[in-house]
Amino acid sequence: MAAVHSLGDDSRVNGTPRLVVDLDVMQANIDRAAALATERGIRLRPHVKTHKTPEIARRQLAAGAVGITVATIGEAEVFAAAGCNDILIGYPLWIDDSALHRLRTLAQRVTLAIGCDSLDSVAALPPGFTELVIEVDSGHHRSGLLPERAGVLAQRLTERGHRVRGAFTFPGHSYAPGAGGSAAADETAALLTAADSMASHGVPARVLSGGSTPSLGHVDARLDEYRPGVYVFNDAQQWELGSCAPEQIALTCHARVVSRHGDRVVVDSGSKVLGADRASYATGYGRLLDDPDARVVALSEHHAVVTAPVLPILGSIVRVVPNHVCSAVNLADELCVVDAAARVVDVWPVAARGRNQ
Amino acid sequence: MAAVHSLGDDSRVNGTPRLVVDLDVMQANIDRAAALATERGIRLRPHVKTHKTPEIARRQLAAGAVGITVATIGEAEVFAAAGCNDILIGYPLWIDDSALHRLRTLAQRVTLAIGCDSLDSVAALPPGFTELVIEVDSGHHRSGLLPERAGVLAQRLTERGHRVRGAFTFPGHSYAPGAGGSAAADETAALLTAADSMASHGVPARVLSGGSTPSLGHVDARLDEYRPGVYVFNDAQQWELGSCAPEQIALTCHARVVSRHGDRVVVDSGSKVLGADRASYATGYGRLLDDPDARVVALSEHHAVVTAPVLPILGSIVRVVPNHVCSAVNLADELCVVDAAARVVDVWPVAARGRNQ
Repeated sequence: MAAVHSLGDDSRVNGTPRLVVDLDVMQANIDRAAALATERGIRLRPHVKTHKTPEIARRQLAAGAVGITVATIGEAEVFAAAGCNDILIGYPLWIDDSALHRLRTLAQRVTLAIGCDSLDSVAALPPGFTELVIEVDSGHHRSGLLPERAGVLAQRLTERGHRVRGAFTFPGHSYAPGAGGSAAADETAALLTAADSMASHGVPARVLSGGSTPSLGHVDARLDEYRPGVYVFNDAQQWELGSCAPEQIALTCHARVVSRHGDRVVVDSGSKVLGADRASYATGYGRLLDDPDARVVALSEHHAVVTAPVLPILGSIVRVVPNHVCSAVNLADELCVVDAAARVVDVWPVAARGRNQ
Repeated sequence: MAAVHSLGDDSRVNGTPRLVVDLDVMQANIDRAAALATERGIRLRPHVKTHKTPEIARRQLAAGAVGITVATIGEAEVFAAAGCNDILIGYPLWIDDSALHRLRTLAQRVTLAIGCDSLDSVAALPPGFTELVIEVDSGHHRSGLLPERAGVLAQRLTERGHRVRGAFTFPGHSYAPGAGGSAAADETAALLTAADSMASHGVPARVLSGGSTPSLGHVDARLDEYRPGVYVFNDAQQWELGSCAPEQIALTCHARVVSRHGDRVVVDSGSKVLGADRASYATGYGRLLDDPDARVVALSEHHAVVTAPVLPILGSIVRVVPNHVCSAVNLADELCVVDAAARVVDVWPVAARGRNQ
């Protein structure tokens, strides 16, 4: 049966549902990834879309990260304002006048991505404006060029006066049971092919950047940098993929049991708190940290229906593990931070929440 | 091929992705529901969790709605501050001291719900504090009592000095192809059974409240009020359930085509904008309003992969219909409001976004 959790009478953290970060677990996740990167001789550039929280980026940088990765200009603005100076916007932006205007104040701090053969997306970008990296497809088949085409694009960009820094990929096909190792191998192959292609077109790749959390443990030392995001918190997806143990899950949603009948309870962490993500391999819409046999079997906006061998009692508080923590954090205005004794030590604003542009 | 949409040079609405409301379509949806309610002799109490926007609640009330429904105390606070005086919190709250404290300032304006047999959830509630309604299960099997048990609970509540106003249900099993009519019939049967049960225990039900958007067209005149939410905007789910025509969809996400290769494009409305909802009957993760054959076939946080018979061009803007509009709105800080000529006429803050407690 799931343990009952309470954050006590701290008025800052009354009420459920609420996202709660275990500070020690999070710091251990940061330190473990940093040690792995050091061991393999690669740099970390964590994707901060997961946490959207400057306080956490500072801890990642303090542990040795070379910079950060973001998905949008809006995220870059938030983290630049918080003092981050080396930001990869790892997304194939369409740069119109409005985007260019916003990028001007960030130009010394950001690297931009190109994700397809066409140069139309950067037609408005002045030559030399900022460094560029070319996205290649390593098997996820979402965006990115075929690796062997990176050289042609790099050459065309260079001829227009752009500075091409290297190539990057997201091995998103690591998100399948047992796929972390093979996706990492695909990633390495794609980036080395891209590097060869660029070299043969006279544009040396100074950085080969990969990364996802399920492939992190398999990262190849021939890469230069890695961009995992979820590892800082972990979630039910990583738990089910075997990328983390449950004791490495640093973020949960504290939720109240508001109804109990038959073989199930309803807790108040619905999809507007957890997110509605459910990968094909997921065993439910979320799990309980304190009962590995419990599952969120149905999810609506404010109701999570949970089954468990021994049901938690009505009115108790359980710790729900979201399937996909990036989605959960993007729904929250703040994160409640607790120590190992479950004492509240801080409340962090999710400063880049909703910065989707 | 999907039409290309632009909101022009209005600096308030630069950038994608962005939620855009067609004001005329929304008003027509409000008016049509109001006319239906009048015809059936029932009152509307729209669920404002869909839009979380006081400007829209005012329009619903102006069209004859008797009050509103919310899911959380936080939503009640926002809409009470905006002048709403008759608010049903249609959720089985667990009322602890903190909740009670917040409810005290709302007590004259809110009706509370009880969703299970136990009185524990309202043990802290002073007798007569506010009116209560009893949730019964009409077939969705999420929360709520068996209808024939409503009378026993009503009697126990009355004996403790509480004022029981009636019964309500959410016929959520209407969310299946062709199920709107049968779910409405189940709903009616459950509410009439609850009323009989309450009457036989000496507690007359003064209100029988049902409602969902797929069952709205089938509402039974023997009910007193109805609480649909989504109808105000509609979405891809309603489109696919046959609850609306595409020209009745009032909210879309304007998204940019950022990548195009092979038989698909990537647009920049990912799950952090659309939400990740995908019902079992859904044909994709979202649709394009201007091309009924287009589908969002894959969705990640900032990428929606779209297939269509004729692909939109790179850099163009398409109108994406979210599967579940309530989730999309809860991810947005504001709604851009346009007239029939696609001119921006207003920007409404989503005042209750994220008010999950």
